[in-house]
Amino acid sequence: MMSTSSNGEVLDPFDYDPRTRVVFGPGVVRRLGELVAGYGGKHALLVTDHGIEAAGHLAPCLASLQDHGIETVVFRDVQPNPTTDDVARGLAVARHKQIDFFIAVGGGSAMDCAKGINFLLTNGGEMRDYWGVGKAHSPLLPLIAVPTTAGTGSEAQSFALIADAMTHRKMACGDKKAACCAALLDPELTLSMPVGVTAATGIDAISHAVESFVTTKRNPISQVFSRRAWKLLSTGFPAVIADRSNVQARGAMLLGAHMAGAAIENSMLGATHALANPLTAHYDITHGLAIGLMLPHVVRYNSQVVASLYGRLAADSALCAVDDPQASELLANRIAEWVRMAGCPTSLQECGVDRDRLPQLAEEAAQQWTGTFNPRPVAATQLEELYRCAYEPAV
Amino acid sequence: MMSTSSNGEVLDPFDYDPRTRVVFGPGVVRRLGELVAGYGGKHALLVTDHGIEAAGHLAPCLASLQDHGIETVVFRDVQPNPTTDDVARGLAVARHKQIDFFIAVGGGSAMDCAKGINFLLTNGGEMRDYWGVGKAHSPLLPLIAVPTTAGTGSEAQSFALIADAMTHRKMACGDKKAACCAALLDPELTLSMPVGVTAATGIDAISHAVESFVTTKRNPISQVFSRRAWKLLSTGFPAVIADRSNVQARGAMLLGAHMAGAAIENSMLGATHALANPLTAHYDITHGLAIGLMLPHVVRYNSQVVASLYGRLAADSALCAVDDPQASELLANRIAEWVRMAGCPTSLQECGVDRDRLPQLAEEAAQQWTGTFNPRPVAATQLEELYRCAYEPAV
Repeated sequence: MMSTSSNGEVLDPFDYDPRTRVVFGPGVVRRLGELVAGYGGKHALLVTDHGIEAAGHLAPCLASLQDHGIETVVFRDVQPNPTTDDVARGLAVARHKQIDFFIAVGGGSAMDCAKGINFLLTNGGEMRDYWGVGKAHSPLLPLIAVPTTAGTGSEAQSFALIADAMTHRKMACGDKKAACCAALLDPELTLSMPVGVTAATGIDAISHAVESFVTTKRNPISQVFSRRAWKLLSTGFPAVIADRSNVQARGAMLLGAHMAGAAIENSMLGATHALANPLTAHYDITHGLAIGLMLPHVVRYNSQVVASLYGRLAADSALCAVDDPQASELLANRIAEWVRMAGCPTSLQECGVDRDRLPQLAEEAAQQWTGTFNPRPVAATQLEELYRCAYEPAV
Repeated sequence: MMSTSSNGEVLDPFDYDPRTRVVFGPGVVRRLGELVAGYGGKHALLVTDHGIEAAGHLAPCLASLQDHGIETVVFRDVQPNPTTDDVARGLAVARHKQIDFFIAVGGGSAMDCAKGINFLLTNGGEMRDYWGVGKAHSPLLPLIAVPTTAGTGSEAQSFALIADAMTHRKMACGDKKAACCAALLDPELTLSMPVGVTAATGIDAISHAVESFVTTKRNPISQVFSRRAWKLLSTGFPAVIADRSNVQARGAMLLGAHMAGAAIENSMLGATHALANPLTAHYDITHGLAIGLMLPHVVRYNSQVVASLYGRLAADSALCAVDDPQASELLANRIAEWVRMAGCPTSLQECGVDRDRLPQLAEEAAQQWTGTFNPRPVAATQLEELYRCAYEPAV
């Protein structure tokens, strides 16, 4: 944790290990083949899904790879929120093909699945063997990610989120060796996102910036990325909601989501993500929408302990002065306003959540690892209260 | 180049490739052996100088390496501003020792020399073969740097500055493969710096933050590091000058110098460094002091084109509002005030520079590569005028 004083800063010890090169700009997807060749790749497995192909994003990738003599096998059957079954099918496609390089084109699902296949192809065993941190013993193959949404930031992270196909339990499998060697950030690829996906992924990215900035594991470098991400996202989000074809704003969202992802890699997340997961599991509420329902309430709850940090974010987006006692409230209101403006739900009631089940949801939220990094401690009692705050629509 | 508008930011394309893990905290030098072993090192060459050994910094390094079974050969004969002769002597020590790892303990000289030896041991030939960027064809050995000054930021960079022993020309030999795998930032190691060294290296670090923030090659990620470095250095510098034993302020300086170095790796430097080098070459003025003489004048000169950027730095250190028309002048004055406060010279006259030689110095400054990245173009005429501004003491 880092605290501040008027005379300077208390800098606590940290260990920051960046692994991912960032290549940013409209049209940079056409450099994919050059980059793969530069890293020595000859036989690539490209992991994606049918929606990405239908949106026309696969063709420029394959053309660029072909131009540079990269033999490419495509696995295009990734399902949303990939399970061990997706990984197994991808692994079957990859085997006996002398694959020496991975490419993921898509959202978090394609990137997670590519990392999962990479674990098993290089280190053997099953996904559950890699649940946790640093379980791979051999090097993984290099991976380049080409995100087509601006939300997850998975291209900046060494974690693969893979659900067990039997139990549906999400396993976070993290290993520095699984991080991308490069992320290719091309704002033009995100223009095809429908407004609903733009909103849900954008709110998720915003929550990554806001949550990572205040966690108990934050450090001076993760905070640099959180804060810059916030600045990019807080200007980019209203602009892309107003005009989906604004490439500049799409670029701000894509880079902001990436930087927020880079922050998470070092700082983890907080209570908002702990609260969102049970809503998605039981009511099938899209992750970003569940996040948007809960984040303003978590900001108000946390303000008791991290008001000065929220004050910096509020000041960065010109809501108030950095030391305004209302800064946290203004920040929470601004986020809630964006959620409403983007046409996303603003209350659990509206999403069909049963009020009587809030205690059960809170028990489940209390089991989420991510909640342990929240700056103000949360147990089932506090989480239930947060659900209650989000239950009825604001007046 | 990045420019801003009231509606958001124009984000120009960039390619950012970080290579260096940062391990920060008082006492972390004792983790050196653990880190080397973690990267698979068994036979290390440790590059340092006699002053570092006399200050007692070698002993904890060697103890930690021994604890982890790392066989270590010490090359302790690095001279300040190392030449090809230093590299040759280090190479002779390293040969036939099955060296598989490099460690540099010291200031920029030790780090530059270690990189130089690494080039020749792994890729053969002579230093001039690597002058420029990306000339190494084979991988270099992993290198961990342990800086004992807070100034150069060399531990964040892939460049080795090695002077030709015959011509005394400084060769900047850069290759991503020469970057450190890790930088071990232990503020306690910087406590031994005398006040003069603290001042000169600190001013150099400050100039890295200020210059890298505005160069023509700046990008959204390098600027994040420049700005955070500025914040750390602008609070840390007055504090370490007032009290050399302030470990918190020493930490802020060390991390700030590192972040400024990380910014340079992507943004390069500007006219201040072009102006400083001839002063050092002809009048033996310590690099940091030459920088301190010139930086305030370069800020005033550049303000015509990057006033809004200087405004952000000025606002970050609470000199004024971000859009204050006097921001650049206030920033320049604050830097000049620090130079004076630290007991460093404030005019070329005071340093024995001959006024008649300013045109010749300006011609040489105009040949410096670094000047080409200055946001406002500089040729010999402008550089001579900048020397004239710095010639007489301010009243």
